[in-house]
Amino acid sequence: LKRIITLTTDFGTQDGYAGAIKGVILGINPKVKIVDISHQIPAQNILAGAFCLYNSASLFPNGTIHVAVVDPGVGSKRKAILIQTERHYLIGPDNGIFGLLLRKDKVKKVIELRNLKHFFGKISPTFHGRDIFAPVAAYLSLGVKPEEFGPESSGLRKLTLPRIKKSKAKIIGQIIHIDNFGNLVSNVTAQDLGPVKKMSVSIKAHTLTKLSRTFAQVKRGELLAYIGSADFLELGLREGSACLKLKARIGDKVEI
Amino acid sequence: LKRIITLTTDFGTQDGYAGAIKGVILGINPKVKIVDISHQIPAQNILAGAFCLYNSASLFPNGTIHVAVVDPGVGSKRKAILIQTERHYLIGPDNGIFGLLLRKDKVKKVIELRNLKHFFGKISPTFHGRDIFAPVAAYLSLGVKPEEFGPESSGLRKLTLPRIKKSKAKIIGQIIHIDNFGNLVSNVTAQDLGPVKKMSVSIKAHTLTKLSRTFAQVKRGELLAYIGSADFLELGLREGSACLKLKARIGDKVEI
Amino acid sequence: LKRIITLTTDFGTQDGYAGAIKGVILGINPKVKIVDISHQIPAQNILAGAFCLYNSASLFPNGTIHVAVVDPGVGSKRKAILIQTERHYLIGPDNGIFGLLLRKDKVKKVIELRNLKHFFGKISPTFHGRDIFAPVAAYLSLGVKPEEFGPESSGLRKLTLPRIKKSKAKIIGQIIHIDNFGNLVSNVTAQDLGPVKKMSVSIKAHTLTKLSRTFAQVKRGELLAYIGSADFLELGLREGSACLKLKARIGDKVEI
Repeated sequence: LKRIITLTTDFGTQDGYAGAIKGVILGINPKVKIVDISHQIPAQNILAGAFCLYNSASLFPNGTIHVAVVDPGVGSKRKAILIQTERHYLIGPDNGIFGLLLRKDKVKKVIELRNLKHFFGKISPTFHGRDIFAPVAAYLSLGVKPEEFGPESSGLRKLTLPRIKKSKAKIIGQIIHIDNFGNLVSNVTAQDLGPVKKMSVSIKAHTLTKLSRTFAQVKRGELLAYIGSADFLELGLREGSACLKLKARIGDKVEI
Repeated sequence: LKRIITLTTDFGTQDGYAGAIKGVILGINPKVKIVDISHQIPAQNILAGAFCLYNSASLFPNGTIHVAVVDPGVGSKRKAILIQTERHYLIGPDNGIFGLLLRKDKVKKVIELRNLKHFFGKISPTFHGRDIFAPVAAYLSLGVKPEEFGPESSGLRKLTLPRIKKSKAKIIGQIIHIDNFGNLVSNVTAQDLGPVKKMSVSIKAHTLTKLSRTFAQVKRGELLAYIGSADFLELGLREGSACLKLKARIGDKVEI
Repeated sequence: LKRIITLTTDFGTQDGYAGAIKGVILGINPKVKIVDISHQIPAQNILAGAFCLYNSASLFPNGTIHVAVVDPGVGSKRKAILIQTERHYLIGPDNGIFGLLLRKDKVKKVIELRNLKHFFGKISPTFHGRDIFAPVAAYLSLGVKPEEFGPESSGLRKLTLPRIKKSKAKIIGQIIHIDNFGNLVSNVTAQDLGPVKKMSVSIKAHTLTKLSRTFAQVKRGELLAYIGSADFLELGLREGSACLKLKARIGDKVEI
């Protein structure tokens, strides 16, 4: 049984916390393949972690174990969970971080991680990544059954996105994520827009009068609005950064 | 056939785009060894990507597959290519990113990537890293022959470096790269200098009157000029950053 | 013999120096498992590298080879060493970078790396990571005996931490490390404090009147003082950054 374990955290690498997780995993299963998805999620930003997983995790082969640790609630009462989906295993805090990813995959079972036998040393109050999530992932990769880590759990915390305001004439949403290339992701989904033919999208002082399908449909340096790969309305700039051009920030309003 | 695939991109890691490439590769060949060279190439900076590859890629064992995605022209008419060299396979956009690396290795064959059979899903207009380069690398690692990915291609886009100005009395070049330690790399090569015995190098208000061979030849905190590992004239500072000391930027003039 | 080699450096990834180390290692032993601990140690900061290793390296399985390259003295007379401990092998410059890690493990033997046979090419005066430490790690992973790399060495450079000032009434220490979450690590150890019952900790304009055991013992947004995992007195902020709140820097005084 030679499994893949992926890691998505907000640890950075310079303090050795990400290295600690790798050490614990390899200490239990030295043959598992560890794949870094990211250790650069902005600190304690669950939504950014959810986007990162949404863009990457579903592409891994069946049986992959995804560990995600963006965990502002560590030490509080938030549960530690293992989600078995139709294709993968997801391990992390129950705080919505898998919320977007689960739009692409189906939950089969949720286990609350409680069995101390499969934890690492005495559990520190601040570092469940090392003490709970890493060893559970490693034992799972060795063939331990999900049920052995704890009782089945009902319910799963939802990822809470800011709500849009919708009236007959318009939709008001906001920017909820900005990617590495400066593309602006809003909280307005394709479904929210519905099958409208004509629309305009306004952000700050700019108004776009149509929805584009590809960057190639506008000229270099021009703004465009499009439905991104995560099914949200996005704003981009051909061969440049919409974020820099608009001096945009998370929370900026988008009016449609 | 257990191959190594290296990755060099400007994606950063936080959006999951680098993770997506890894997922696609492992989805096709779960046994391949993926090695991160960098995901921190400055966005759309082909020359910086070329330096990174030049410093690292040739050191990998024969048969290694290097994937490089710094791709400002994605969606335009730039070709997607696979270069078979005497020792390695290079996969990426045809935009010169392999230009410096190819000074150390010899091109045997260039294939234009056209065979949809070895692509991933429907090709998105913006993410050829995931949809073309990653799956081609993965199928190649499984033993698919280069010819099966498309027709042979003649020609290869050159890496265009800024030109030096050369007269009898002097050479005027510029800084084209600044490394992590603040060393300044110019576009003046050892060949440009020729077998001169006496020379002086000026940058900003500073003039150096000789070419050093090692950092140990100057005192701590002193500037030096030397021929770097990429065969360009460089400026460094012993146990410090020439970049900070000179407040240097890419494009600054160097007069010799 | 399938070994793990970990890497901890201050190279960043964008120049390809970290990639060069991986290439050299895999060129010698293509089957070894390379694990990145960090390439983001602040440039030439030996103490930060020591903390990173302290938090992560001891967790890896027996027989792991840890390579650490934060090497401001490269090219000077500092030795290049291989330390065999009871559980691991440590390879890097003899500058104290393994100083904290060695509190958790016991030195069995120190070898000075001198045997050119196991080096890479001609040794560059500036890049021992690629030319000495990487190939030695790779040959070691193939089963070459420690003694074959050079003579046994007596002594090991200590990690020099700033000293505390201690009087009957108080201890004056300073902040020596700030982690990714903004926790402030001081140079005051649990031993320095001794078995005191009552104490107060002052930093800048703030005074804390007790030592906490966990973050949960204070309210959100409140400062706390505690003994961290590295056995130093630390200052943190529940669900936030003590560093930002206090505008703290390395070198700030802590009075107890």
